[in-house]
Amino acid sequence: MTIDMPTGTDSDIPTVTALAPVFALHRGGKIETALRVPLQTRDDLSLAYTPGVAEVCLAIAADPDLLDVYTGRGNTVAVVSDGTAVLGLGNIGPGAAMPVMEGKAMLFKHFAGINAVPICLDTTDPDEIVDTVARLAPTFGGINLEDIAAPRCFEIEARLRERLDLPVFHDDQHGTAVVVLAALTNAARVTGRDLAGLKVVVAGAGAAGVAIAAILAGAGILDIVVCDSRGVLAPGRAHLAGYKEGLAERSNPRRLSGGLAVAMEGADVYIGVSGGQVPEPVVASMAPGAIVFALANPTPEVHPDLAHRYAAVVGTGRSDFPNQINNVLAFPGIFRGALDVRATAVTEGMKLAAARAIANCVEHPTAGEVVPSVFDERVAGAVARAVGQAARDEGVARG
Amino acid sequence: MTIDMPTGTDSDIPTVTALAPVFALHRGGKIETALRVPLQTRDDLSLAYTPGVAEVCLAIAADPDLLDVYTGRGNTVAVVSDGTAVLGLGNIGPGAAMPVMEGKAMLFKHFAGINAVPICLDTTDPDEIVDTVARLAPTFGGINLEDIAAPRCFEIEARLRERLDLPVFHDDQHGTAVVVLAALTNAARVTGRDLAGLKVVVAGAGAAGVAIAAILAGAGILDIVVCDSRGVLAPGRAHLAGYKEGLAERSNPRRLSGGLAVAMEGADVYIGVSGGQVPEPVVASMAPGAIVFALANPTPEVHPDLAHRYAAVVGTGRSDFPNQINNVLAFPGIFRGALDVRATAVTEGMKLAAARAIANCVEHPTAGEVVPSVFDERVAGAVARAVGQAARDEGVARG
Repeated sequence: MTIDMPTGTDSDIPTVTALAPVFALHRGGKIETALRVPLQTRDDLSLAYTPGVAEVCLAIAADPDLLDVYTGRGNTVAVVSDGTAVLGLGNIGPGAAMPVMEGKAMLFKHFAGINAVPICLDTTDPDEIVDTVARLAPTFGGINLEDIAAPRCFEIEARLRERLDLPVFHDDQHGTAVVVLAALTNAARVTGRDLAGLKVVVAGAGAAGVAIAAILAGAGILDIVVCDSRGVLAPGRAHLAGYKEGLAERSNPRRLSGGLAVAMEGADVYIGVSGGQVPEPVVASMAPGAIVFALANPTPEVHPDLAHRYAAVVGTGRSDFPNQINNVLAFPGIFRGALDVRATAVTEGMKLAAARAIANCVEHPTAGEVVPSVFDERVAGAVARAVGQAARDEGVARG
Repeated sequence: MTIDMPTGTDSDIPTVTALAPVFALHRGGKIETALRVPLQTRDDLSLAYTPGVAEVCLAIAADPDLLDVYTGRGNTVAVVSDGTAVLGLGNIGPGAAMPVMEGKAMLFKHFAGINAVPICLDTTDPDEIVDTVARLAPTFGGINLEDIAAPRCFEIEARLRERLDLPVFHDDQHGTAVVVLAALTNAARVTGRDLAGLKVVVAGAGAAGVAIAAILAGAGILDIVVCDSRGVLAPGRAHLAGYKEGLAERSNPRRLSGGLAVAMEGADVYIGVSGGQVPEPVVASMAPGAIVFALANPTPEVHPDLAHRYAAVVGTGRSDFPNQINNVLAFPGIFRGALDVRATAVTEGMKLAAARAIANCVEHPTAGEVVPSVFDERVAGAVARAVGQAARDEGVARG
């Protein structure tokens, strides 16, 4: 899911009565295994199973490259979670995370034709998660990490990328980052700004915030200030945990220090992945015609009605406001493209290409439409083509 | 798959040309993920995914028993292999094992409506296999171990049974054993013998042989002699690896020693799970009207034409002779029954109940029909009912 953050208020959560259809719909689960070939006759059985299957096994044993040709592996992704940062609900455990992983598997199939298998792990130890997932490599053509809390998610992803010649992608980081960059690209166009010259505040230094800062820097933006709950990340600040120290060094070129209000003064862009609420005067202190992406769910850090008093472009994570910044615009196409060319990794170049492709799906961006609809069927294909080409350009494609 | 043993000759393997349909059928794999609920509209998305899904997650977090109600877990089985004993092909590795696991997943779905997910592991270390599978417990309602070589398979299954409150079932052991017992039950009826009084030779002391000896003893048969490639397992024999020592103690009540020929003289039953060939004079030395189950694939230890010269009932693992002794008669119904009652284990009583149910599916057993057809649609349901009842009787049912 999109963003790991504490929930805001409960005010938008409907009552249990209203939600009864949700439970009815979930009964028995949302996905199933289906047969792609017939199994009705003795001949069917002897082709799909013994004795015929033995020839396929032997062919794969002789040429491991055939594994992705004669099994579903090359089109199958594991959706892996430890249940420590599920939606905005926090650490609710691997079992309670299952409905989200099933939902994710639905999205993979629906938007990209990819078979996805929920894998919820009964451990939160990074060593154990890395070892477990690495041992699943013969089974899956790609690994989508999901809802794993920071900072463990950084280490887990880095170690798996190092260990596996497969696309490994923590969606809460990079899916969010790719869509934010896409939205920001079009928002800059709409407001007549140069992307690289934007002054950006990223509020939230968890999985999403760190990845957003990284991809924006990769896209050429120089002035990025990241805030956590204690304020601006600045070198030498007290309470800088390991990964935040490096992030403070790499960002904040004006070496600001203080609270969010200091960072926001004169900023062109606010990207909220933190939860909580931004006071109106702080929003008002941004540059004229600002861009506000307040992505906390269900309660955005800045309500769109308030944001519109000061900002030219407003986006949220919600489907009931314009400019829904949702990972589903990114991950299906990114994995489709990576699997199509049998990429050995998801590189920075592939993510940037994905963001460009998403942005370009909006032919005439306006303040009310900086990203395509999550139901725009063209997006996944466009992203897949761009990602596949980027993989080839960067030398990580095998097919 | 049924039996881990060295292959016989290649004589029955068709040429590559003849097998081209096998490769065409396997292209892209034999199974896929499918959606059980719609995902067409914004409302669909907000029920199956955010924000609606959060309510289901919270419900499961509050009551873990709801995991099997509101996700697919309660009807999903992992088909786990390390690729060390695949069909008769031996240790061909986890990737090359994938087509078999996909085939198995098809059978689970077709015969029992169970969603099965291939999990091929990039490790053969028992500690690592046990840890990895145990960590998958939030994802799967049952664990079907498959094509893991002896003796590691015994330890792995025992440790997983100890560690998990789930049905854990090594099909190469127990699936084979259940169907052999079913077939033997009817063969004894057909030949007018008392099951408990049979003199049985089990040729092969691998996964299948050990489990067959165990279930036959559990069914009350007293005189069981197990042979490996060096001859009869007898206490004090040289070259008795760890688990064979105990097996030698528990079996062979007449304390025979020597080669297979010694065991076969006067025996009522030969059960071959060893590969190789039994010389005709050895078959001829069995008791009149003997029972021969020669299960090596594709080349039975005793060809049926030869066996019929001396035996009253002959079974093989092959579909082109009568009495096909095939695990598919057992595992779909066993897991169906175990999942239906949310069993915490697969007990000996559940296996015996499964064997009885399979045997009883043949209303009028004859020498040519001691087991039902693998396509008999009644079998899985009958087995499931019997297994579920046995689970309740034995106190391992939760639902």
